[in-house]
Amino acid sequence: MISVVLLGTGNVAKNLFESFLKSDEVAITKVFGRKEEALSYFSNRTETSTNWKSLPKADIYILAINDDAIAEVSKELTTSGLIVHTSGSVALDTLKKHQRFGVFYPLQTFTSNKIVDFEEIPICLEAKDASDLQLLETLANLLSNRVAHIPSEKRKILHLAAVFVNNFTNHMYTIADNICESNDVDFSLLKPLIKETVSKLDSLSPTEAQTGPAKRGDLKTLHGHLDLLEGSQHKEIYKLMSNVIKATYGKKL
Amino acid sequence: MISVVLLGTGNVAKNLFESFLKSDEVAITKVFGRKEEALSYFSNRTETSTNWKSLPKADIYILAINDDAIAEVSKELTTSGLIVHTSGSVALDTLKKHQRFGVFYPLQTFTSNKIVDFEEIPICLEAKDASDLQLLETLANLLSNRVAHIPSEKRKILHLAAVFVNNFTNHMYTIADNICESNDVDFSLLKPLIKETVSKLDSLSPTEAQTGPAKRGDLKTLHGHLDLLEGSQHKEIYKLMSNVIKATYGKKL
Repeated sequence: MISVVLLGTGNVAKNLFESFLKSDEVAITKVFGRKEEALSYFSNRTETSTNWKSLPKADIYILAINDDAIAEVSKELTTSGLIVHTSGSVALDTLKKHQRFGVFYPLQTFTSNKIVDFEEIPICLEAKDASDLQLLETLANLLSNRVAHIPSEKRKILHLAAVFVNNFTNHMYTIADNICESNDVDFSLLKPLIKETVSKLDSLSPTEAQTGPAKRGDLKTLHGHLDLLEGSQHKEIYKLMSNVIKATYGKKL
Repeated sequence: MISVVLLGTGNVAKNLFESFLKSDEVAITKVFGRKEEALSYFSNRTETSTNWKSLPKADIYILAINDDAIAEVSKELTTSGLIVHTSGSVALDTLKKHQRFGVFYPLQTFTSNKIVDFEEIPICLEAKDASDLQLLETLANLLSNRVAHIPSEKRKILHLAAVFVNNFTNHMYTIADNICESNDVDFSLLKPLIKETVSKLDSLSPTEAQTGPAKRGDLKTLHGHLDLLEGSQHKEIYKLMSNVIKATYGKKL
């Protein structure tokens, strides 16, 4: 049995909480939050507290808070146990004032009110000491089939790549949604296309999967689209992406 | 029984061919191609020809060729039957020299060597005459559960939006793949994230689903990512996308 203290009440904390609860081999000792209201999600199901200065004994302390708060908050904590953060972009060394520290980074996007299944989520681990890495691996294997040891430098790269495949693609969906809405067209007609775009990656590399007017060098369609976007804030993105795709596939126009 | 002549040998033609073959209510009369080699895919399973000037009798002639060839090729064809193209961006009127004409646009991305199931693919229809629209609808309903009447102006909008959700997101995957490869990181670790990004759209609007450092206004992470991209062609896309996301979510930085 591994005992865990969760520090944080956001989407990552909620998702880890739900996943830990399902395992017979994890005991959630306590959940800490800055504000009483934020703890209400957890309070009927485990012990909760707003007093971060007084930590109970546990095997692992998981700091599931915003990236930019990790340095400051971790300094306030006093424990001789293993303390880890869940961030893709914060270096391991940020926790170095502690005796035992590591990283437990689930490579996924977590949103309010949506609990995801951890089984397929890669969990990227790092720790100062080999024995602690082993302990994190035991915990991670209880949740996921895709556990990887990833040092800070490579974790940063993964996080950067994640911004492209998640944050930027999602904003492409937002732009398409806006374009459809302004023209009274049903955005949901695009959903099978969105799904197939991802499904292709099971059998093709993204380079092989690329299609469209920019790749073909189809100037007539490109100019037609730019005309439709005249005066729109989306025009700049259309131009830059099309130029980069043209350059990648060797169409000098 | 609806008899169909396919003109074209590319990915759209191949996918339509496979889908029509499965239906007992569609007969493929002949497939036409510019070159003999390109017809080899079809030649064991139906009649084929390179002589576009001599069309056999059929209910519908489907011109599944590149957008920029539709105007020119359609002028060469002589038929009193219903002739349609399969393009998202070419106007209905491009075919107006013919007596009966329309559009049969499957809103999907088609790639070599990947045959997709049409059942969930929206087929966007348009025709000069109501009776021809009815005929196209009968044909489309044999393939798909999502048949829609979409006039040329709205079809153009859908095609533009499709470029954002398909071409541009796929290029985001290519960039992430490049970043991972240059840093000896396994791109496949990102696939569960890519799938969840799309899966979120079943329950959230893309605006609700947005996460990440640009939305949070997390300058430290943004600058860290820009440092990692120093000297890279991907930096400009990172900057533009982040600025647009920041502006959309009201973080003036």
